[in-house]
Amino acid sequence: MKPEQDINNLRHSAAHLLAHAVSELYPDTKLTIGPSTPEGFFYDFLPTTNFKEQDLPAIAERMQEIAERKLPLTHEQVPKAHARELYKDNPFKLELIDQIEGDTVGIARQGEFHDLCRGGHVEHTGLLKNFKLLNVSGSYWRGNRDGQPLQRISGTAFFTPKELRMYEKRRQEALKYDHRKLGKEQDLFSFHEEGPGFPFFHPRGKIVYDQLVGYLQSLLRAADYQEIATPMMLSDELWKRSGHYDHYRDNMYFSEIDDRSFAIKPMNCPGAILVYKERPRSYRELPLKLAEFGLAHRYELSGVLHGLFRARAFTIDDGHVFCTPDQLEEQIKQMVAITYTVLKKFGFEDITVGISTKPEDAMGDDALWDKATDALKHGLESAGVSFEIYEGEGAFYGPKIEFRIKDSMGREWQCGTIQVDFFQPQNFDLTYVTPEGTRARPVMVHRAIYGSIERFMAILLEHYKGRLPFFIAPVQIKILTITDEQKPYAQELLATFKERGYRVAMDESSDPISGKIKAAQLQQVPWMLVLGAKELENKTITLRHRDGKQEFGLTLDDLLKKAEIAQK
Amino acid sequence: MKPEQDINNLRHSAAHLLAHAVSELYPDTKLTIGPSTPEGFFYDFLPTTNFKEQDLPAIAERMQEIAERKLPLTHEQVPKAHARELYKDNPFKLELIDQIEGDTVGIARQGEFHDLCRGGHVEHTGLLKNFKLLNVSGSYWRGNRDGQPLQRISGTAFFTPKELRMYEKRRQEALKYDHRKLGKEQDLFSFHEEGPGFPFFHPRGKIVYDQLVGYLQSLLRAADYQEIATPMMLSDELWKRSGHYDHYRDNMYFSEIDDRSFAIKPMNCPGAILVYKERPRSYRELPLKLAEFGLAHRYELSGVLHGLFRARAFTIDDGHVFCTPDQLEEQIKQMVAITYTVLKKFGFEDITVGISTKPEDAMGDDALWDKATDALKHGLESAGVSFEIYEGEGAFYGPKIEFRIKDSMGREWQCGTIQVDFFQPQNFDLTYVTPEGTRARPVMVHRAIYGSIERFMAILLEHYKGRLPFFIAPVQIKILTITDEQKPYAQELLATFKERGYRVAMDESSDPISGKIKAAQLQQVPWMLVLGAKELENKTITLRHRDGKQEFGLTLDDLLKKAEIAQK
Repeated sequence: MKPEQDINNLRHSAAHLLAHAVSELYPDTKLTIGPSTPEGFFYDFLPTTNFKEQDLPAIAERMQEIAERKLPLTHEQVPKAHARELYKDNPFKLELIDQIEGDTVGIARQGEFHDLCRGGHVEHTGLLKNFKLLNVSGSYWRGNRDGQPLQRISGTAFFTPKELRMYEKRRQEALKYDHRKLGKEQDLFSFHEEGPGFPFFHPRGKIVYDQLVGYLQSLLRAADYQEIATPMMLSDELWKRSGHYDHYRDNMYFSEIDDRSFAIKPMNCPGAILVYKERPRSYRELPLKLAEFGLAHRYELSGVLHGLFRARAFTIDDGHVFCTPDQLEEQIKQMVAITYTVLKKFGFEDITVGISTKPEDAMGDDALWDKATDALKHGLESAGVSFEIYEGEGAFYGPKIEFRIKDSMGREWQCGTIQVDFFQPQNFDLTYVTPEGTRARPVMVHRAIYGSIERFMAILLEHYKGRLPFFIAPVQIKILTITDEQKPYAQELLATFKERGYRVAMDESSDPISGKIKAAQLQQVPWMLVLGAKELENKTITLRHRDGKQEFGLTLDDLLKKAEIAQK
Repeated sequence: MKPEQDINNLRHSAAHLLAHAVSELYPDTKLTIGPSTPEGFFYDFLPTTNFKEQDLPAIAERMQEIAERKLPLTHEQVPKAHARELYKDNPFKLELIDQIEGDTVGIARQGEFHDLCRGGHVEHTGLLKNFKLLNVSGSYWRGNRDGQPLQRISGTAFFTPKELRMYEKRRQEALKYDHRKLGKEQDLFSFHEEGPGFPFFHPRGKIVYDQLVGYLQSLLRAADYQEIATPMMLSDELWKRSGHYDHYRDNMYFSEIDDRSFAIKPMNCPGAILVYKERPRSYRELPLKLAEFGLAHRYELSGVLHGLFRARAFTIDDGHVFCTPDQLEEQIKQMVAITYTVLKKFGFEDITVGISTKPEDAMGDDALWDKATDALKHGLESAGVSFEIYEGEGAFYGPKIEFRIKDSMGREWQCGTIQVDFFQPQNFDLTYVTPEGTRARPVMVHRAIYGSIERFMAILLEHYKGRLPFFIAPVQIKILTITDEQKPYAQELLATFKERGYRVAMDESSDPISGKIKAAQLQQVPWMLVLGAKELENKTITLRHRDGKQEFGLTLDDLLKKAEIAQK
């Protein structure tokens, strides 16, 4: 048995423990399902009155009691008729029984408690002491938002008290540096009831957003990308042709114009395809690299919305490269290189890369798949990147590379992706004219580096614990004077840094210097230039970093040189 | 009688002439209405089979014949009952008769032809010879898109053959420099059936768009504007509160999320208001100048869509300034100054400015209106701008300034606007904390300079006859070599200009120099650097402008200095 199965068994058993406690405390509550998750476990209930956060301590206490009873966990197969009788008052369980194949179903038991269950548990409830209940949220029966609304209690569990303590410490840290909290403290963005899940960028947040876009644009320009902008709304017929309507409709928003239905774009590819098709293309134009910072709208259940991590609108740093099969390898290599440049720029050193290969229901012939998969492999190899192979896990339309980064709190995030696409060029009959004057089919590659600008901004905020690097900080430099006497000197410095394009501000308040420092600290301004009588006299500057470190006696020239380096 | 009334009578009579000819040629066609317009006239028909462009010459010929008959035009009032009998087969005319007040209606006659008509004509059809039919388009009865679809024939008419010739010359020129034609020739943007009225920006067009935004951003930054970005979709409740839902609903698109209706924003103000309200504001923050380059979506009838002039989505260069009443004048002054800077930058010297004052149904007290209107006047005066007063033509929520520019073909465009708004601050209960610690109501000013980036781009394309100025041209410099021998020299120049941030390209084709020049000319590249044997030998450059003018023997230094000036 592998370790990850063990922890899954532990957590699934902890879900039973939770259901057991709830059944004892609230006997009229209907049980539905309670799986383990990568982070812990949950159980979805239909209670007679909704659970609140303040109910959790009592439930946890009862769980602890049951754990102390050290009840053995057993599991047996029983005839379906028997199970139907057992759960005759629970329509959810009856539905599940109907859907299980075969004549018997599994029942797990611990003391008086029993639950419909496929199995996989620890030996007795005494092993389940190291758990923590985390929160109550709304959910739906089988995740279907037209289905019965339910109440979900989530928690986590570990084998040892030490593991649980470490988890709680990490969680405290994550809460402290929650990007939603930092976003408010640093006045970066907000969410409003008038547009749930749609971020409002405040001036300071818009600067960070623009810096992220601008930095990538400079790399893309150097790599001969050309930027396009395609409409927010496109007709249903287009989304039907692209396949999004069939596969993705439930996550799309629609509107009507002149009795015709249009979707608000959830992806940018169809727009790029129409631009490609707008006129005949020659082999001379390939590889054609189209970039689009495209605002996509996607439906998410209100219960799973999570600041900028999971919003209903976000900007994809999309790239669509149209090339010949022979150009594929070089293109992949370039994309991998840019991805690494960007991720390392933001201090992500621990990057996991995987290639997902041909699945069973793939389109396109084996030779093309082999060529494309080799192109992905060689592209990574020539960039000196080691990778895993996820056999058969590619999309039906082509193989892909996925990049996962580990942040400073040890959490993994999937950001970049490079996807080869044989399907859309055929589906939209994309062609180019070869040197021989014949028509040939280009390959299309979809790629994103940030993934979503908004989400990447949130990852950065948490990764840097609120201290965004100098080159993307909303205000890079704040000038603080100890008395009004230094104001003219401060004005001089302000003008000098402004002229050179730095985002620099001056604290004009009459607060004492300690107050000024505190205010700049809260906004995580990277550089504070502190000016007092001594600095004025010697025409020097004290540079105070946001971590409290200070450098004394710097000249303007010193500072300008430092700033130039920090800006790069 | 004023001259513009004369021309209106002439054109309205020409519409009758058109209807007369159509009645003779297609007797079963139902007539509806035929007014004069600022540009000419039209008549809306319900024909038995749709008119085509190729029907126009025959109709025009018959009009010319009727004109030569020199039929006197008469006009009489007849009892409604009589008119109802006369038009018993025409439901449109019957509807009109019902809606006219009083017991009689006017009937105009010329020969056998008669039409329901308020009057205002020339003496006889012989005066109507100088007309031209322009096109056939779709329309709706009373412009209501749920109403009966009709066919509109449009034309124009003048008093003298010379005036008509001049008009046709201007029209030819306008057709030649139609931005839709230029947009295609220069590969700037396109429209697609999959998104009617929604522009697709190609890489070259996206550069122009970005340059327009970037130029304005640099002015706004200097004027202490802060940029925000608010969502594309906001709830109906918000639009109901803002008043847009009641007044503007027919031009808005809607979508549903979780059974709640959201509008796709037709304007950016409610978003800015929510950002203002996000936290308490102090007098210290005022004037708070929020800029947003916000993509707005507005419904337009498909028949009136006209490239980037009239599209269904466009980016407003919105500014929302929140200030105290006392700060208003200074703010207006700054806005006028920026507007003039921008318009003059693009060569618009003929600018008409008007102030629209308090209408009858205004909100807010007279003192506040006087103060605001004075602020507008003084703002213009202190910028040395003369203006007209449009008495009583302001919006109910406040007075406004409108800027109209005349382009190189003599056509007028309304672009910028500055609108004082007393209503929304009260409606959304916006406040700020005064120095005394009390709460006070800010004034809100809406302002746009370009109006719509997309429309302004179209105006510029036509105004410059396709020759966009150096600083916003998609490709600013193109390097053309006469033989391959000059390629290394060309590469050097390419690298030098690229490094300095210019948009520079090299013609890599094996075409002869004449072909290379022609290609660069078609794309209206401002500067062609022509390199031959002589240039290589002397390390000089021949600069060819797109108008054919050439400057020989320039050094790289000369060129860099020239470029720096052109870039400003």
